[in-house]
Amino acid sequence: MKVIIDKKAGFCFGVRRAIDLIISELEKGKIVYTLGPLIHNPQEVNRLKSLGVKVLDKLNGRIEGVIVIRTHGISPQDYEDLRKKASVIIDGTCPLVKRSHFVAEKLRAEGYRIIIIGDKNHPEVIALKGYAGPNAIIIKDKNELENFSIGGKIGVIAQTTLSKETVQDILSYLTTKIIELKYYNTLCGITLNQKKSALQLAKQVNKLIVVGGYNSSNTTKLAEICKEVQPNTYLIESHKDLQSTWFKPDDTVGVTAGASTPTWVIEQVIQELENISRYFTRNQITVP
Amino acid sequence: MKVIIDKKAGFCFGVRRAIDLIISELEKGKIVYTLGPLIHNPQEVNRLKSLGVKVLDKLNGRIEGVIVIRTHGISPQDYEDLRKKASVIIDGTCPLVKRSHFVAEKLRAEGYRIIIIGDKNHPEVIALKGYAGPNAIIIKDKNELENFSIGGKIGVIAQTTLSKETVQDILSYLTTKIIELKYYNTLCGITLNQKKSALQLAKQVNKLIVVGGYNSSNTTKLAEICKEVQPNTYLIESHKDLQSTWFKPDDTVGVTAGASTPTWVIEQVIQELENISRYFTRNQITVP
Repeated sequence: MKVIIDKKAGFCFGVRRAIDLIISELEKGKIVYTLGPLIHNPQEVNRLKSLGVKVLDKLNGRIEGVIVIRTHGISPQDYEDLRKKASVIIDGTCPLVKRSHFVAEKLRAEGYRIIIIGDKNHPEVIALKGYAGPNAIIIKDKNELENFSIGGKIGVIAQTTLSKETVQDILSYLTTKIIELKYYNTLCGITLNQKKSALQLAKQVNKLIVVGGYNSSNTTKLAEICKEVQPNTYLIESHKDLQSTWFKPDDTVGVTAGASTPTWVIEQVIQELENISRYFTRNQITVP
Repeated sequence: MKVIIDKKAGFCFGVRRAIDLIISELEKGKIVYTLGPLIHNPQEVNRLKSLGVKVLDKLNGRIEGVIVIRTHGISPQDYEDLRKKASVIIDGTCPLVKRSHFVAEKLRAEGYRIIIIGDKNHPEVIALKGYAGPNAIIIKDKNELENFSIGGKIGVIAQTTLSKETVQDILSYLTTKIIELKYYNTLCGITLNQKKSALQLAKQVNKLIVVGGYNSSNTTKLAEICKEVQPNTYLIESHKDLQSTWFKPDDTVGVTAGASTPTWVIEQVIQELENISRYFTRNQITVP
């Protein structure tokens, strides 16, 4: 059995930056809190918990210690609330997500009606909506625009992890409806490259393992698009989810992961795949 | 033979406005000049000549009289030249084209690199380029963009008579290459509606007559897109171009025209088609 690893798989710089900020505070002996889990990956969240990080569901009273804003960012309203209750705030918002906040504020100040392309339940989009203002619309596809009367000056921003195609489709529709359109490209190049790289790998192998949190929209989407080109795609959260019955000795197995999947989790998966491969060799299992 | 007339065919408000401006000056007894033919329609240009309008190829010396800027507009450089040489200037630029000049100036002032989508030899685009500045790029399709390194802040304006599809195609391509995109929708709603209406008629009939100047890009494009759905499409400039051998007694013939085609030219064509129809009836010509 041959295992090919996607070189672009795993943590992006935004996630790595947020984790580094946390570790640095822990090393100073501080008590570190995050509001909600730092990233959508239970293994890494558990590892951070074991190092002392406390995950808060919401802010009730005052927090003594350091509170780290997670990569998805928070709305200006939530930031104000945080300022009142927390003694030290460290902003772990992904710099690309932060840029989308700046452009939302700019579009709003310039009088554009803002359309956010994204998932209205995703924390990144909820925070962005806070900057875009109460008149902003959140849509996932162009059909939803039929519910709104669109015209005049429209500003468009997308959730950073969306596909180019989703954004192109909506912009294309909008250009015929509006008088003026201002679009800031906030799509994350790393996510786009990861998708491209994963798709290339998916075509090259006959089984594909996508590693990542089941609650990560980024990873589940990655698995979905890979499944379109490689039907034998398995989404797993850790090496414990691997089943040896999925594989045959002459398989070429690809391993990829989303931007919120830690390297150590990917390495455990690779290790386990190598164990399965060795088992095949040891027992001289050949193709039936 | 049945003749169906496209209700949306013929002069748009921009052309009608320019002609009204000229007629009003002629009625005041003024000598009226145009720089280049007012519109791309030789019949109407000849009619205006017969009323006293003089067409200048270029400005040499000083002009005593009224000079009317044609619907396509002129560049700011040409306007300055005109100011020095003409005693009275009347601006016949189509108000929608004039808006594209304003937005080009705005985009330029805001630091956008401007992409003009259009035909670089069309007078409207030549004038618009004057407002967009020396760094502006003129392209007709997205493949031409491969010759340029595109990125950063991009402003996009299109020639008013283009199709939605051409613009959508280029914008869609651009959204993946840039950081920020500002697009002003300058497409002429009348032209778009004329295309839609002409295409509907083309499907309804078995012969289609498109009336307009052979040098009008608007009309020739209209004939091209109609030919795709109705292969029996004939582009003619006047009723004199109609040939009775094109038709059969049981034909349903549609008549349409571009925005630069005068109503009186269309009416002459309809009259001639009715003559042909009457000839079939009189001579009891039936389908062979």
